[in-house]
Amino acid sequence: MTIEASTGALERARKAYGELVARGLSLDLTRGKPAPEQLGLSDALLALPGTGRYRAADGSDVRNYGNLRGLRELREIFAGPLQVPADQLLAAGNSSLELMHDCLVHALLGVVPGAESRWADQERIAFLCPVPGYDRHFFLCERFGIEMIPVPMTDDGPDMDEVERLAAADPAVKGIWCVPKYSNPSGVCFSDETTARLAAMPTAAPDFRIFWDNAYAVHHLTDEPVEIADLLAACAAAGNPDRALVFGSTSKITTAGSGVAFFGASEANLDWLLAKNAKRSIGPDKVNQLRHAMFLRDEEGVRAHMERQRALLQPKFDAVARILEAELGGTGLAAWTSPKGGYFVTLDVPEGCAKEVVRRAAEAGIVLTPAGATHPYGNDPRDATIRLAPSYPSLEELEQAVEGLAVCVRLVGEERRNGER
Amino acid sequence: MTIEASTGALERARKAYGELVARGLSLDLTRGKPAPEQLGLSDALLALPGTGRYRAADGSDVRNYGNLRGLRELREIFAGPLQVPADQLLAAGNSSLELMHDCLVHALLGVVPGAESRWADQERIAFLCPVPGYDRHFFLCERFGIEMIPVPMTDDGPDMDEVERLAAADPAVKGIWCVPKYSNPSGVCFSDETTARLAAMPTAAPDFRIFWDNAYAVHHLTDEPVEIADLLAACAAAGNPDRALVFGSTSKITTAGSGVAFFGASEANLDWLLAKNAKRSIGPDKVNQLRHAMFLRDEEGVRAHMERQRALLQPKFDAVARILEAELGGTGLAAWTSPKGGYFVTLDVPEGCAKEVVRRAAEAGIVLTPAGATHPYGNDPRDATIRLAPSYPSLEELEQAVEGLAVCVRLVGEERRNGER
Repeated sequence: MTIEASTGALERARKAYGELVARGLSLDLTRGKPAPEQLGLSDALLALPGTGRYRAADGSDVRNYGNLRGLRELREIFAGPLQVPADQLLAAGNSSLELMHDCLVHALLGVVPGAESRWADQERIAFLCPVPGYDRHFFLCERFGIEMIPVPMTDDGPDMDEVERLAAADPAVKGIWCVPKYSNPSGVCFSDETTARLAAMPTAAPDFRIFWDNAYAVHHLTDEPVEIADLLAACAAAGNPDRALVFGSTSKITTAGSGVAFFGASEANLDWLLAKNAKRSIGPDKVNQLRHAMFLRDEEGVRAHMERQRALLQPKFDAVARILEAELGGTGLAAWTSPKGGYFVTLDVPEGCAKEVVRRAAEAGIVLTPAGATHPYGNDPRDATIRLAPSYPSLEELEQAVEGLAVCVRLVGEERRNGER
Repeated sequence: MTIEASTGALERARKAYGELVARGLSLDLTRGKPAPEQLGLSDALLALPGTGRYRAADGSDVRNYGNLRGLRELREIFAGPLQVPADQLLAAGNSSLELMHDCLVHALLGVVPGAESRWADQERIAFLCPVPGYDRHFFLCERFGIEMIPVPMTDDGPDMDEVERLAAADPAVKGIWCVPKYSNPSGVCFSDETTARLAAMPTAAPDFRIFWDNAYAVHHLTDEPVEIADLLAACAAAGNPDRALVFGSTSKITTAGSGVAFFGASEANLDWLLAKNAKRSIGPDKVNQLRHAMFLRDEEGVRAHMERQRALLQPKFDAVARILEAELGGTGLAAWTSPKGGYFVTLDVPEGCAKEVVRRAAEAGIVLTPAGATHPYGNDPRDATIRLAPSYPSLEELEQAVEGLAVCVRLVGEERRNGER
């Protein structure tokens, strides 16, 4: 581009931005919250189980204390989607994040199977953090003083050469965070080879754990649902049965704050968590579990329900892709993912521009996830990654927001090209 | 008693026990579980909030993420019963025990307001444990390696001379467990003086905490509901605003596994817990909170509901008192409490006999809470305390169980009198 053309582009971008600010928008693309229409798909849940309905399939009274494993019939529904045999699956409270937090706490303050001591008594504990990744995973590490070691994501999952090297070299490396399907925020799905290597790799720590946050197991956005390899089985086959901790929930299947979370692992890990939980709780909310089992019925019920979710979500993801292509395609100012499922689109802007794009968007009334949130300690060293969450706004609001965002990307990008940044 | 009379009594006791065993009972007095009829009082909950009903009083959508403090309208209902202003009360998950556990975890792994360091980094941490007390409190301490120092209960609460002496002398003493109203298992209610002294006493630890488990705040069994002093206000007035952590739940108001738990404290403690929870959860099950607010409506609704609970429970407590008096009154072999509320009766048997009574009862098909469970480390040094939980069995089963228990007490007591134990 000649200097004149570039200056013209900057002027056009400034004019467009001025018009955008003048519109006084108030839009929010920050978090992966389901839209009201999506929650409405589970409206029947709000009247379930119904008066006089309180017996689980085994005849037990779900209203009373007990049953730390959770309702068998609900565990059977999710055994397939989460790739965990029902016998090795717990149905717990309303948040899988809580389960991950609690596993960290119990490993810090108790002794995890295979460990030589409590993690709290060890000088240094580190986790591998594929980036970009999920900010709440990183918050948990930060909170407990667990060192985070970033590992780049590839199209097949984390860079496994790097993961293998780090895990083999350092006994302080106790775990890795993984969102194996439709990853948050990149949409990447782990290849079978990635999963096999994770299961089989030598680790310096005898108590290494894979936190396998399968949050989007059934959250497809295309006609080609992605299947990933079965980590729990792969770990067992590789002689590392206790390495995998599998998490999932119905938060983005039924209702976001009132769903059911799941934990799957080896018998040894299961016994460990159950023993810890037995001291903490007198059982999960089994009425809510019965409610979910009645509503979803079986694995096919989950699949059919997620088709209805897709019908609401896919147009939003299509709109993001369409607008980004129309507004930024060929400009050299942005690249973005086209996920086949999950809740996020990752937008890459020129190095050093992400924070400024987010700041300018906020000034124009478009709130984005803070730049850097996708990286440990909120620090994206390239300052280039922006996470977009298209699910919550209406289609019209979303279109306005992405159009506005594109204006901001052009402005900041052209400022940079003109040496103003 | 002459030797002959005593021998005759032993023979009669043996005969009665033989007949009891021959009946082949299968009865359970172990845990304070609500009976199915009690749970049935909340049957309407099972169909609430109802389809299309998902707005909180503030207009927010309870189905989505967010609102770590919980629904305001539910906090307002329980502000009075729990003696915590709604602004200082959190509505959380389905278990107050979880909240207590999590407060310990956050104090161990974080830094509680007023603390100089994390408890996990201190050489020794101890809690005062009024005895007899609640086994699950003791389990939490045991689990985290917190030393337990027993303090005897009086009719007015813990022996405050002893509590004051221990708290003032030892900076490792970081807290005390209290069930201030209708205490588990003794039924004791803390006098206003006890509460005032707890609030005002000097403590060697600057971060001393009172775990105030007000589990039976509205669980009256007589026409004279007991009121206790307001600990949170007393602590604030005494210049120790951060000393009180108040817990409660609807577990024994609505349903036992599907209720709502509460946490009340100073602003500093509240901010501390909210900051910790914000990293762990994306909010409580607010649909369940809305369900409870709709069902209970207001403080008067809670009171009326608890009157219906009382109508089911009081006959059971009356039966226990009646049978114990008829079978053991005047024998010198037992003493028992007559609680004005709560869920338990404490039976005292001659020193060294509690374990044997529990063992003999189990042989006769009557399962009791293990002797010693009311004391730290499961160790009742007098081996004299047995906790009875009359709520769950039907009245007929309860009567059989308590009659059988009395047979066991007579047997073991007469064996002892005859030098056989």
